[in-house]
Amino acid sequence: MSIALFIQHRFSERWKDHLSQLLPTTKIEIYPEIEKPDEVSYAISWKHDLGVFNQFKNLKVIASLGAGVHHILKDESIPESIQITRIVDEQLQKDMASFVLTQCLNVNRNIFQYLRQQEQKEWKLNTYKTPEETKVGILGMGVLGKSAGELLHQNGFQVMGWSRSKKQIDYIETYEASALNQFLSKTDILVCLLPITKATIGLVNCKMFNQLPKNSSFINVARGELVEDADLLKALNNNRLKWAVLDVFKEEPLSKNHLYWSHPKVIITPHSASLTNPKTASKQLAANYLRLTEEKELHNLVDRERGY
Amino acid sequence: MSIALFIQHRFSERWKDHLSQLLPTTKIEIYPEIEKPDEVSYAISWKHDLGVFNQFKNLKVIASLGAGVHHILKDESIPESIQITRIVDEQLQKDMASFVLTQCLNVNRNIFQYLRQQEQKEWKLNTYKTPEETKVGILGMGVLGKSAGELLHQNGFQVMGWSRSKKQIDYIETYEASALNQFLSKTDILVCLLPITKATIGLVNCKMFNQLPKNSSFINVARGELVEDADLLKALNNNRLKWAVLDVFKEEPLSKNHLYWSHPKVIITPHSASLTNPKTASKQLAANYLRLTEEKELHNLVDRERGY
Repeated sequence: MSIALFIQHRFSERWKDHLSQLLPTTKIEIYPEIEKPDEVSYAISWKHDLGVFNQFKNLKVIASLGAGVHHILKDESIPESIQITRIVDEQLQKDMASFVLTQCLNVNRNIFQYLRQQEQKEWKLNTYKTPEETKVGILGMGVLGKSAGELLHQNGFQVMGWSRSKKQIDYIETYEASALNQFLSKTDILVCLLPITKATIGLVNCKMFNQLPKNSSFINVARGELVEDADLLKALNNNRLKWAVLDVFKEEPLSKNHLYWSHPKVIITPHSASLTNPKTASKQLAANYLRLTEEKELHNLVDRERGY
Repeated sequence: MSIALFIQHRFSERWKDHLSQLLPTTKIEIYPEIEKPDEVSYAISWKHDLGVFNQFKNLKVIASLGAGVHHILKDESIPESIQITRIVDEQLQKDMASFVLTQCLNVNRNIFQYLRQQEQKEWKLNTYKTPEETKVGILGMGVLGKSAGELLHQNGFQVMGWSRSKKQIDYIETYEASALNQFLSKTDILVCLLPITKATIGLVNCKMFNQLPKNSSFINVARGELVEDADLLKALNNNRLKWAVLDVFKEEPLSKNHLYWSHPKVIITPHSASLTNPKTASKQLAANYLRLTEEKELHNLVDRERGY
């Protein structure tokens, strides 16, 4: 039995080192350098190439490197018999909330504007609103939306939350599905933290943007598939939106040709809002591998029907 | 009696509008458009041209537009008989703390790095430390240093404070003057919030930078005169410093020729960390003007010896 890593753009060598320390006698390889494919029983994946697992006849488990498993579930070539696990780590929520706070503060305090001005050597003061005067509207009131909302509230922002079914959350003004337009009309900064489902793909489109006040901003830290890119570009170009702060994209890495890269009102980060911590996550991955060798039930198993 | 505004780069017209609403029968003019200089009794200043007040024989009060009065006290042509006032507004501290938090989060979460990468259309993930793993060292534990430290602590950062005399502050690890090197050697992000005095001018120089760990960052939100610019550039170029995040400069606006503008490791904001709120400050300015006309003692008078 051996472990193989299928990790794109996420420091494969570092993960291998961490796992090797915890499992010193186990063979751990990085795809595509796999000596004996038939020995691989445990795959660790972050955005693997679809279909790649067909080469591994004795694969028992695919472990996601993060909390999300969309990148695994969308690979229809994976047999039902293979177990899928994910990382459950409270730090992921904390990092996400902290990233959302960072970008809301940047929008509020004109930091992106000043960086653009610096390119032109332009010294020009812009007024700002305090967090107390700023309404952040969060799309999606799941675990991530709620914890981001709470951190924003602690830092003085007015926080509103929209979700399919209305939720009762302290300090957050919640709106249910049918009250979407009312929610959007009050939003200065729209933060997307929706889950990805059939109902949410492409949901953030011109219909939404047109309900926002002029010069509002949009932050996407969920998934690129939630947004209609052409509509977003239109909303930026007609000044509906002041900034689009994007951490996620339909295609990652974002293609060099994409209009986002050089759009003056788009701020790009490379899916970095919340990164699995190799130290703590390696412990979960190694423990589950040992449970597999001992034929015990795995931790943090994913229910494919439910999607997490 | 009339009011004259001497406000550089700070929205003169907006201030005039606010004051006019509060003092509808008072003549309020913007320098240099002053009809009758001898009628001006109350001047409102932000970085006036030195010596400009000599033209106003009946001037009684110079009111600073901000909490700072250094720009007034350094004008030796101002007679002793003229009273000086300043704005006292708790929001100024809150805005400063919020700005420092914003920039510490930006350093921590590699936001400046990602903006540089975007210029090159480069998709590259950088690891980050959590706030809990990051030590922010604040130079100066006055009102501003203390409130910034508290907000950073609330957001999870480890906070250290350095001041002339050791202070006892909850949640902040304080160091006295003689422990400077020990303080610096532990600092990941150095924040300058020192007051400007004879002892502090030029204090932030190569001796300080050389004690910092490699790849630390420096944030200056106090005064440009505190920093030796040549030493700062050297520390950036030899990788002692990763980022210099500068809101204040010896000369403001910063000259178009200055090396800072185009240095890839310098982030420039135009003295915007904490802006006096025209709404609340206009009330203080108008109230003091009325007290002057009624020959009552003014609020928020500055003691020239003490300097605030």
